[in-house]
Amino acid sequence: MKRLFCLLALLAVPVLSRAQQAGVEAARAYRSAHAAEILADYVELLSMPNVGSDSVNIRRNARFIRDAFAARGFETELLPMPGAPPIVYGERRAPGAARTIGIYVHYDGQPADPTRWTHAPWTPTLYTASMEQGGAPRPMPAPGEAVDPGWYLYARSAGDDKAPLGALLPALDALEAAGLTLTSNVKLLFEGEEEMGSPHLGEYLSRFGDRYADVDVWLFCDGPVHQSRRPQLVFGVRGVTGMEITVYGATRSLHSGHYGNWAPVPGARLAHLLASMKAEDGDVLIDGFYDTVAPLSEAEKQALAALPAYDDQLRRELGLAETEAHNAPLAERLMLPSLTIRGLSSGNTGALARNVIPATATATLGIRLVKGNDPEHMLDLVEAHIRRQGYHIVYEAPDLDTRLRYPKIVRVDRSESGYPAARTPMDQPITERLVEAVTAAAEPPILVPALGGSLPLYLFSDVLGKPFVIVPIANHDDNQHAPDENLRLANLFYGIDLYAALLTMPE
Amino acid sequence: MKRLFCLLALLAVPVLSRAQQAGVEAARAYRSAHAAEILADYVELLSMPNVGSDSVNIRRNARFIRDAFAARGFETELLPMPGAPPIVYGERRAPGAARTIGIYVHYDGQPADPTRWTHAPWTPTLYTASMEQGGAPRPMPAPGEAVDPGWYLYARSAGDDKAPLGALLPALDALEAAGLTLTSNVKLLFEGEEEMGSPHLGEYLSRFGDRYADVDVWLFCDGPVHQSRRPQLVFGVRGVTGMEITVYGATRSLHSGHYGNWAPVPGARLAHLLASMKAEDGDVLIDGFYDTVAPLSEAEKQALAALPAYDDQLRRELGLAETEAHNAPLAERLMLPSLTIRGLSSGNTGALARNVIPATATATLGIRLVKGNDPEHMLDLVEAHIRRQGYHIVYEAPDLDTRLRYPKIVRVDRSESGYPAARTPMDQPITERLVEAVTAAAEPPILVPALGGSLPLYLFSDVLGKPFVIVPIANHDDNQHAPDENLRLANLFYGIDLYAALLTMPE
Repeated sequence: MKRLFCLLALLAVPVLSRAQQAGVEAARAYRSAHAAEILADYVELLSMPNVGSDSVNIRRNARFIRDAFAARGFETELLPMPGAPPIVYGERRAPGAARTIGIYVHYDGQPADPTRWTHAPWTPTLYTASMEQGGAPRPMPAPGEAVDPGWYLYARSAGDDKAPLGALLPALDALEAAGLTLTSNVKLLFEGEEEMGSPHLGEYLSRFGDRYADVDVWLFCDGPVHQSRRPQLVFGVRGVTGMEITVYGATRSLHSGHYGNWAPVPGARLAHLLASMKAEDGDVLIDGFYDTVAPLSEAEKQALAALPAYDDQLRRELGLAETEAHNAPLAERLMLPSLTIRGLSSGNTGALARNVIPATATATLGIRLVKGNDPEHMLDLVEAHIRRQGYHIVYEAPDLDTRLRYPKIVRVDRSESGYPAARTPMDQPITERLVEAVTAAAEPPILVPALGGSLPLYLFSDVLGKPFVIVPIANHDDNQHAPDENLRLANLFYGIDLYAALLTMPE
Repeated sequence: MKRLFCLLALLAVPVLSRAQQAGVEAARAYRSAHAAEILADYVELLSMPNVGSDSVNIRRNARFIRDAFAARGFETELLPMPGAPPIVYGERRAPGAARTIGIYVHYDGQPADPTRWTHAPWTPTLYTASMEQGGAPRPMPAPGEAVDPGWYLYARSAGDDKAPLGALLPALDALEAAGLTLTSNVKLLFEGEEEMGSPHLGEYLSRFGDRYADVDVWLFCDGPVHQSRRPQLVFGVRGVTGMEITVYGATRSLHSGHYGNWAPVPGARLAHLLASMKAEDGDVLIDGFYDTVAPLSEAEKQALAALPAYDDQLRRELGLAETEAHNAPLAERLMLPSLTIRGLSSGNTGALARNVIPATATATLGIRLVKGNDPEHMLDLVEAHIRRQGYHIVYEAPDLDTRLRYPKIVRVDRSESGYPAARTPMDQPITERLVEAVTAAAEPPILVPALGGSLPLYLFSDVLGKPFVIVPIANHDDNQHAPDENLRLANLFYGIDLYAALLTMPE
């Protein structure tokens, strides 16, 4: 509680070290003088197609990035794994530094359908403002020409997630140019298949984890800042799992006239089963669903209470008169596990609907997890609930004997590999340092206990056993995962200042 | 009740008139002597492709049938309607007859995918037994050669619904050859688009109904006999209607991590709505759903009680350990309106499932109607039920204002045009005559108050105001609507004998 008090006090009255102040000033001076060159370097990085499954191009990106960091004093290496893009490893030791920072970035991007983009996805195009704001394309600035922070640069991965690379490199250059030394050792972990679901990250960490054993804190450089454009630091993510359930009727679709009112209707059974799992107000009715939720710390509670009120605006945008749990705040709801229905299918709807009683009805359940929830245990709870509704559970399509023995049968498919949530304690000294750094670069950040989305950060917090903090720099309107992805240049500049502050933060 | 007593007595002790006995004997003698020719004539009829939408070929069928009946003393005409296959009209007056029988047959068949047939659908092929029984193809019999009633003739429409034509023509020839006169006037109504849903039948009847004004009873010649191979007479059909309902969440699919536990989940809402409509045991919970059901007559109740027990076998075949309403008999359940779910859809299931909260969830409801139910009124009841669950109903996709005003919104689509059920009273004199005729031709029939399936027979019973009885002759294993459709020759022979008995039944 004492530490928390310090943290909240910091948000109001940031205290900057002399070295950090010099670092941020160096960054600002450097990016003012070299804005056009910084932009040109970033355009070069964005010009390389970077879909993780495109093994030739993704390796071009990896080599380019490796070389860029090698040129800035890093010992570098491409960590190999058959069938996976390499991890770009880098290490730079700071004389006398007691702390080691790990920096995670992913250099791959989402696939892009060029027909849906205004410009080719890997032909970076500069705009005087965002397209939505009525911006117009403009040429790249000449060396020495002034750069407007309101400009937008359009390209795949401009926001997600090459932006941290585009900012970190000039931050290093700025400190070098000013003759400032880093206050932390730095280790790099740049992944090349995050958008594919990080299928090899766990294996990479178990194989190469030794190289990262001395990392004290992971800066997870991904995602956007707050919708209000205020900076934010995020201390957790939800985990994820899921299950597909299929309810059975007869062995084949039946004529709804000859059998309607007699044969069980799978869609009706599924409706009862799903209704039994979740109340109309959103409360999950599965026994034990909320029992393993780790309690919120005082720091987390206070951070939640301090979040900007945004729900009403979100409801208006999304056309929702009311949200679950009687308009309970989104940020609070994200601290609980959720049960949603990703998909329903049975027979056909619309023009293809036929007068039948379909043989099956299927629902795909999505479950988001919070700290304390074990993915497999949560699925076990769902199964136990299904059994309590009188269902016999099978894991393959039931044979005739099984069908004739059990009136109510559900097939459960648990083939989805989920992973747990992760949260880093907010009330620890590194938090204070990070808040100082963000404040030095911009203004006091919004502190978010956990994102609603899922990332496999448990690999860092629980497997490697080290704290992580998500440090986003991109604008929220960067169209990540969508056509016309972009980066607002003010966010690139914020990134440069922020990395300079992070690399010069006091012990 | 007195009349019913007579009816049931008849089933036990059939009394045949002398003329009818002569008619059936004439049919048996004729078909024994001319079996090969009868078969050859039927093969010719089956060789003409007869899909209703194939306007050239369907008209070839109509002309062929018209000519065949014209050659047998009928005044014939092709009743025209632009864009529809003609109705083959025919009339043959019997000297001194006080009664007029209407005979309905449809000469069109289901479309056929030749790749799924063992032989070309319109190349009739004779088998020594059914394919399932291990029958082998064999040549058509030579004139005079004996014909085994166990043979099966494979061709599209062999069972559904050219069989009545293939039987009626030789029945007429048999009576003519024996010098017997008809005891009823006969009017023909042969439809050419039943398999397309009889889209113009109502218009045909309102335009040409005068020609049929003197018909006393309609014999609806379609469908199969009982699964036990016993003959049956059917006195009703269920009506049909339906409705599609769509439940709304946000204006777009939402990331299930960022919004799960906060944004309403359309699939969960739909589950609650559907669960509220129908109990797990199959009982429909919509207020008034059973209120307009016309009560069963004593004759209908007794007929239901006399139906062969078949449910256990059906459950075994269909892999059902239990059916709705705790194994209540199928025949009884078909006398009540049914609510089934033809289809469900929301987002995706299976390999395409994504981690989203879909924007909508849709269910297509199927409703089968019984005598007394008005299709529109039943849909009104469903709407009233939806409103009672707190939903605001719209008929087009809701706009943003509507979304922001109402927390729970359902879009209702009532574009499906349904029609009511129809039942003919079982306890009237014509029933006794028909039972006598079937008994004369074979054995006492099973009397079925109503089929579960739907046919627009209300056009005959309620619009024309005349009783109808469904008089099937095809075998139940005739693969109607499927590849390798067929007719068992014993059923063709039963048809010939039956029509001879019907055409010679006493006043």
